[in-house]
Amino acid sequence: MINKLISNIQKTNAPIVVGLDPMLNYVPEHIQKKSFAEYGETLEGAADAIWQFNKEIVDATYDLIPAVKPQIAMYEQFGVEGLKAFQKTVDYCHEKGLVVIGDVKRGDIGSTSAAYAVGHLGKVQVGNTICQAFNEDFATVNPYLGTDGIKPFVDICKEEKKGLFILVKTSNPSSGEFQDRIIDGRPLYEWVGEKVAEWGADHMGDSYSYIGAVVGATYPEMGKVLRKVMPKSYILVPGYGAQGGKGADLVHFFNEDGLGAIVNSSRGIIAAYKQEKYAKFGAEHFAEASRAAVIDMVEDISTALERAK
Amino acid sequence: MINKLISNIQKTNAPIVVGLDPMLNYVPEHIQKKSFAEYGETLEGAADAIWQFNKEIVDATYDLIPAVKPQIAMYEQFGVEGLKAFQKTVDYCHEKGLVVIGDVKRGDIGSTSAAYAVGHLGKVQVGNTICQAFNEDFATVNPYLGTDGIKPFVDICKEEKKGLFILVKTSNPSSGEFQDRIIDGRPLYEWVGEKVAEWGADHMGDSYSYIGAVVGATYPEMGKVLRKVMPKSYILVPGYGAQGGKGADLVHFFNEDGLGAIVNSSRGIIAAYKQEKYAKFGAEHFAEASRAAVIDMVEDISTALERAK
Repeated sequence: MINKLISNIQKTNAPIVVGLDPMLNYVPEHIQKKSFAEYGETLEGAADAIWQFNKEIVDATYDLIPAVKPQIAMYEQFGVEGLKAFQKTVDYCHEKGLVVIGDVKRGDIGSTSAAYAVGHLGKVQVGNTICQAFNEDFATVNPYLGTDGIKPFVDICKEEKKGLFILVKTSNPSSGEFQDRIIDGRPLYEWVGEKVAEWGADHMGDSYSYIGAVVGATYPEMGKVLRKVMPKSYILVPGYGAQGGKGADLVHFFNEDGLGAIVNSSRGIIAAYKQEKYAKFGAEHFAEASRAAVIDMVEDISTALERAK
Repeated sequence: MINKLISNIQKTNAPIVVGLDPMLNYVPEHIQKKSFAEYGETLEGAADAIWQFNKEIVDATYDLIPAVKPQIAMYEQFGVEGLKAFQKTVDYCHEKGLVVIGDVKRGDIGSTSAAYAVGHLGKVQVGNTICQAFNEDFATVNPYLGTDGIKPFVDICKEEKKGLFILVKTSNPSSGEFQDRIIDGRPLYEWVGEKVAEWGADHMGDSYSYIGAVVGATYPEMGKVLRKVMPKSYILVPGYGAQGGKGADLVHFFNEDGLGAIVNSSRGIIAAYKQEKYAKFGAEHFAEASRAAVIDMVEDISTALERAK
């Protein structure tokens, strides 16, 4: 799957991923109205609204992008109905040839981590039958529990040729509270980064490992260090756009081969029509606003990478 | 909810929680057969089997215990159908007067953490209607992202009078990989424990905070230290029984008031009929084996607490 991700990136010339994190207040009035008319102001109605919203955005952008990253929390807040919309979204993105990164930030131990891995990346046995639940291509995973928490995910990834992005240095302001604390002269995130390189070493694709890392765009200097700590790990970079990261900040997350990083934008793309810059599209044409925002984001990053050469 | 948890513990005289973590291979043949006959060897069939299994165990034990802790991964592995069984289980346990600790180990930032909090502990607005998704009483949360990741959960907990158990020192063998690393002379888990005390200080119940911690039974000496670092936080203690923790190890997790800790057992209770000790019950009467295992566990812990006085 890392090979497919890289080939998708090369085909589109766009090292980006669109975060499908649909808050209900991003969904234009006309879609909400239609869904509520059909299903009422219920969890089912909300789930239908975010699914319709996602579908239009995917239809308007899929030819420009290699991957999407649905944030499961935005679906889980609507319970079982929301999770049906999550599954529909994953399946639809696959139909469109997109790589799907499930932003699930799961993490537990032993058989419990294995159950998460099976549910999101693998297959589960029921009697003598093999069934499949959510079927993403990559999942994000939390490292706080150590190797016991990661290993069951890696094992399933090996079976299924799928991948992980492990939280190393997150994009939020207080991520340093624990992640930056100094241990034997180096911050915790570097120790975690080293482990990511180690966990990834025996699950390699053609040029990069199936086991990647999450490092926030908001911490470019740390990204520079981590790039070297995990040379063979793809870095998923959140925090671009709405969280403050800019194209120029991203240069250090890439390797000299122009690969090695994939930059996420969620709100900046899916709610683009709410920005002044894209207001001309109007709520009716929100998906075209998203398409324009994708083009601008790719341009911003390409220019920055070009300048850095 | 912390007051209700404590009152349930006092009523039952049982500082324990039953982990409803149903692996399909714990579910007796006769239940699986019946479910598969009705729904086929499908995700729906698996979900029905674990729900029927849970229901019998709850029916056989609810009068002896204050709380249950369903591990959502075991349901999530069966996708949307599994999550329906999770919701049914939560609702049924509420009907029986039990406190429900959702072992979800979620953790993200800002609006994403808020979405998880809303989905599991709160209410979500759809149009002008207030809806409810999973509705547990407590949730377990991962602290790796720092205060930004915890605060949105705490905010919802305050609104709803619900609570959290934050991972501090987990029960697994490799938990020390990051959690035990020394920062300014003290292990990371102590720094996290201190934060738990801080986060919990402004959301107090009558005698304990709504914000508790997870500390594994397998690390009793660390439990002793953490008990003092977070005197007002309830400690959820996994790792008893199958993972190797014994009654005598648990003494230090409690305060002098005899409160402050609640010990989880999952496999040891729900799959008790598979142990030699309870084999006489047979697979047909698996729920009675679970009841016997609950009685033995309460006895083991009470004896240990009595001896320590």
